[in-house]
Amino acid sequence: MGERVLYDLEGAEDERRFSPYCWRAKLALAHKGLPVETIAWRFTDKDAIAASGQDKVPVLVDGDRVVSDSWAIAVYLEETYPDLPSLFGGPQAMAVTRFMNTWSDRAMIFPIARMLVADIHDHVHEKDRAYFRASREKRFGLSLEDVSADRDVRVVEFRKVLDPLRAVLAEQPFVGGEAPTYADYIPFGAFQWARCISKFELLENGDPIVAWRERIGDLFDGLARKGLCAPAI
Amino acid sequence: MGERVLYDLEGAEDERRFSPYCWRAKLALAHKGLPVETIAWRFTDKDAIAASGQDKVPVLVDGDRVVSDSWAIAVYLEETYPDLPSLFGGPQAMAVTRFMNTWSDRAMIFPIARMLVADIHDHVHEKDRAYFRASREKRFGLSLEDVSADRDVRVVEFRKVLDPLRAVLAEQPFVGGEAPTYADYIPFGAFQWARCISKFELLENGDPIVAWRERIGDLFDGLARKGLCAPAI
Repeated sequence: MGERVLYDLEGAEDERRFSPYCWRAKLALAHKGLPVETIAWRFTDKDAIAASGQDKVPVLVDGDRVVSDSWAIAVYLEETYPDLPSLFGGPQAMAVTRFMNTWSDRAMIFPIARMLVADIHDHVHEKDRAYFRASREKRFGLSLEDVSADRDVRVVEFRKVLDPLRAVLAEQPFVGGEAPTYADYIPFGAFQWARCISKFELLENGDPIVAWRERIGDLFDGLARKGLCAPAI
Repeated sequence: MGERVLYDLEGAEDERRFSPYCWRAKLALAHKGLPVETIAWRFTDKDAIAASGQDKVPVLVDGDRVVSDSWAIAVYLEETYPDLPSLFGGPQAMAVTRFMNTWSDRAMIFPIARMLVADIHDHVHEKDRAYFRASREKRFGLSLEDVSADRDVRVVEFRKVLDPLRAVLAEQPFVGGEAPTYADYIPFGAFQWARCISKFELLENGDPIVAWRERIGDLFDGLARKGLCAPAI
């Protein structure tokens, strides 16, 4: 095990790492230029991350430190490695970026989960499927297939909810301005998650968000485009 | 006329200055510590601001410069007076704050307009009322009274849309962090607008957004609480 390790949710096939929160953490580490060994983790591997005091990934183990929660990981990296490229651009930028975090969790992650939950089920590891179906059907109060059944209608509303992001990207190349910051990696993680587990089109051709998504995909030698996330089948 | 002037929307009674965009500009000027003379302006006074090349307030006249649009005014002030207290906290913070601007315009201003448009009508200056009714009824395709009729239902959805802001303010005193920045003045302007023209309660008691709104109201000697905005009747 390397001295810096990230527990990273893995799906059914090798190298299908789809968690939006893990993608935020992987892009934050790449932004800082910090090498990391990613360890495949499944929903049912609760014991492996017990040292973090909770049961969700990402979990970063950096030498003696164990940090869970994607936002806490980004703040930890910024404070621990202040001389490496800033993830935020100062304390006020970090504070305002928290709004992007709370917005993306509510306006992006939950609606995407509704639309793609049946696809996610098909891509989680075999040993996770029963857990995944039971926990998600309990959460939604419907079968997974019924939850996603009206997604052609829901996606229209979802695209409209993205208007504030779209309007920003019509004015500047990245949410962080001329160059990407963690405020970009947060919403990007949600799209990357979708791309890894579904062929359903969340955006229309020509949407400025599509071009921005491609720009993030180009970063760090195409980290998000290749390697740890196979294209959705 | 002073050397720095802001054209500021005025309602029916003297000193009822209710425009959310003008409040953003007034708080930005106060944050910079820049004195300004505010000039009462009504919707139908298009000629008075013709020099700005458009027909909406706020319009800032700063010596030889004429700047319209609240976002452009904030950026102008930051760039023109870099040695005065920063409105953003650096270029990345400015870039991310643009997301708060696009979000507030869509998630706050439009829903509040729907809920309060009949109240707004009752508070605009007498000479503006016919213009206001005609332009807004055309926009909504309904009578003003019908547009606002279901606001007791709509406000429940509105409060839910504010969840990302609420979640940030549960973690830190201001959107800008330990101290307010323009990222606070943007959403605050929407609440101040509502307070000036309606007694309808947008928030529930105990909401962390209420306490934050009070903290902004305290700033700059209580600028938003008193003076330019009489309490709604």
